[in-house]
Amino acid sequence: MKDFTFYNPTKVEFGKDKENAIGSYMMPYRVKKVLIVYGSERIKNSGLFDRATKSLTENGIEFLSLGGVKSNPVISNAREGVKIAKENQVDAVLAIGGGSVIDTAKVIAAGALYDGDPWDLCSYRKFPDAALKLFVILTQSASGSEMNSSAVIGNEETEEKLGFNSPVAFPAVSVINPELQSTVTKNYLAYSAVDAASHCLDLYFTAAYIPEFTAAHIENILKTVIRTTDILLAAPDDYNARSEFIWAAAQALNGSTRAGVEGNRFDTHLIEHSLSALYDVPHGAGLAVVLPAWMKWHMSMNQSRYERFARNIFGVQTAEEGVQAFKSWVISIGAPVTLEEVSISRDEVDKIAAHIFKTIELSRMQALYPLETLKDLLSSM
Amino acid sequence: MKDFTFYNPTKVEFGKDKENAIGSYMMPYRVKKVLIVYGSERIKNSGLFDRATKSLTENGIEFLSLGGVKSNPVISNAREGVKIAKENQVDAVLAIGGGSVIDTAKVIAAGALYDGDPWDLCSYRKFPDAALKLFVILTQSASGSEMNSSAVIGNEETEEKLGFNSPVAFPAVSVINPELQSTVTKNYLAYSAVDAASHCLDLYFTAAYIPEFTAAHIENILKTVIRTTDILLAAPDDYNARSEFIWAAAQALNGSTRAGVEGNRFDTHLIEHSLSALYDVPHGAGLAVVLPAWMKWHMSMNQSRYERFARNIFGVQTAEEGVQAFKSWVISIGAPVTLEEVSISRDEVDKIAAHIFKTIELSRMQALYPLETLKDLLSSM
Repeated sequence: MKDFTFYNPTKVEFGKDKENAIGSYMMPYRVKKVLIVYGSERIKNSGLFDRATKSLTENGIEFLSLGGVKSNPVISNAREGVKIAKENQVDAVLAIGGGSVIDTAKVIAAGALYDGDPWDLCSYRKFPDAALKLFVILTQSASGSEMNSSAVIGNEETEEKLGFNSPVAFPAVSVINPELQSTVTKNYLAYSAVDAASHCLDLYFTAAYIPEFTAAHIENILKTVIRTTDILLAAPDDYNARSEFIWAAAQALNGSTRAGVEGNRFDTHLIEHSLSALYDVPHGAGLAVVLPAWMKWHMSMNQSRYERFARNIFGVQTAEEGVQAFKSWVISIGAPVTLEEVSISRDEVDKIAAHIFKTIELSRMQALYPLETLKDLLSSM
Repeated sequence: MKDFTFYNPTKVEFGKDKENAIGSYMMPYRVKKVLIVYGSERIKNSGLFDRATKSLTENGIEFLSLGGVKSNPVISNAREGVKIAKENQVDAVLAIGGGSVIDTAKVIAAGALYDGDPWDLCSYRKFPDAALKLFVILTQSASGSEMNSSAVIGNEETEEKLGFNSPVAFPAVSVINPELQSTVTKNYLAYSAVDAASHCLDLYFTAAYIPEFTAAHIENILKTVIRTTDILLAAPDDYNARSEFIWAAAQALNGSTRAGVEGNRFDTHLIEHSLSALYDVPHGAGLAVVLPAWMKWHMSMNQSRYERFARNIFGVQTAEEGVQAFKSWVISIGAPVTLEEVSISRDEVDKIAAHIFKTIELSRMQALYPLETLKDLLSSM
């Protein structure tokens, strides 16, 4: 096994009605005033906002709120949150939402303790070395942000999509009540499934070495995501399937899949971030377009891993059959697999390739992805 | 899935030579003076003690030490450590050793911040609600103590073996260098393997419900322990096998196997603790004696789980075949499977049964284990 550090201090409170105790979960951290960050007003209509704030009030915790956080989160929302946090001297942030809301809340939590523009923290100008305590009530699984220390956010002015990964950004407590996700639409369930799967697959296919234990762990996550997505599309109220989907999605990016792994990259994420930055495609939908095409292109670089994937995940034999089986599964759950399906014209390929190339320069992967390769790859989507 | 809380803040520094940086790992916690707890003088002869203390000194950290901690740890060692810790106002404890040393260190760390006898904390009289920061350099895997919040310790006067499980007892940082375990004897490797397996099996066989994801995770740990033990008995220097064994053993009791699990118990541990408390049998050797007999007795209470075990772990079909395959494996790695092999006379059965029954009363399992059942079970070992 390759040397590694495993560290994940987030406390997960998993189960029914746990959001009703959010205030009590904050008490050990001596929280006095919290900024609630959320997206759409759905959480108000559903009563979730009121149940959470009732628990805060019962525990003597004041709150302010910032709604309207965009999916494909943007730095302008975070800047607004930082302003509120600083002006009101809040001492914690509560994200009620999915990955976009949590990532925005992470940038706010770090930005509140930084003197400059929070975009500095996301664009490698300054490493976040302190943050307000962050709490989460999760309403949509996919990103894994509820149990990790990274945030990704877009900049509308520069059209960049960047972020940070800092131990100060781990949520202190994440409340995960699977029932809060029973109303996620079938489309978004499919996007979430592809996103969670992609966190496994990027690592699984690009790593130079994966210990057998870790490889089997990754395969367990993948198989769980596939099995439970199929169940949930037919039976959205299946509590156990929902729970397993959610727990597997959290495991997919909480550090456990990297134990002893050597040399992994996040290729499809790098590529997809350009689609969502330029065209506001849902991240999971973008990944559904990118993944099968990328796997087909990448397959020959790690033949035996793809063969193992074919056997262990889909019970087929060859690498080609495995990639095809994955693509068929993506189609079967209703996710898009072509640029056309996400309303991106083929005329945009040069622009997208140039955008990806710019990001890839930052990650020193130009040799693997010269501009022409990116164009070919995009043209195959 | 059953509601659960997952929390494990221990930072694991896994890899070669990492013990040489132990002082730097303490710096973020502002440690000034540390009590080093260890067992035999082997760590001095091997140079490990010097390498660790060199790093402490380089980081300006003073140290005292307490050696001679017994395997099958005892409260008298912990009392001695508490006395040293209080008299010298140390602000952290560094365990260099395996489960016995770490458990003793946990009792010292909690006892140092408690006014009464540290045995109070182990015998349910007082819940440990504070502890000195604990650091670990692991020299033998099996107990999982390097990545969890529980400690088990014996009381020589009362012949009890009890302990605690408190979030304050998580090690802050555990250094796990697989190379430090390459000299573990074959006997102790076998005992360690059975101990790690037992942490999985107690839960796997007694739980009323295990989510599929968690069941597969447990099976992955079990298969890894079995596969790597077989490799290591033939090739003790196989670094990757050693690393996987060690990481799997840590996973076996770090909370990850309980996600969403309903109603598990630790039956074979309860039973074995009497063997090691009364006869100073190595814990893993005691478990090797208890497990196959207990599985044979328990099998009919959870038939389908035993059948799954048979198929998924050993590739055989029936519950009986699975239990037999496990027993054969235990024998094949050189661990004992009878009381006789651990030098316990059959005349002792009544005494052992009475001792177990006393512990079991505390855990409200008398209905499942009446005295006569315990006698029958012990007689079959």
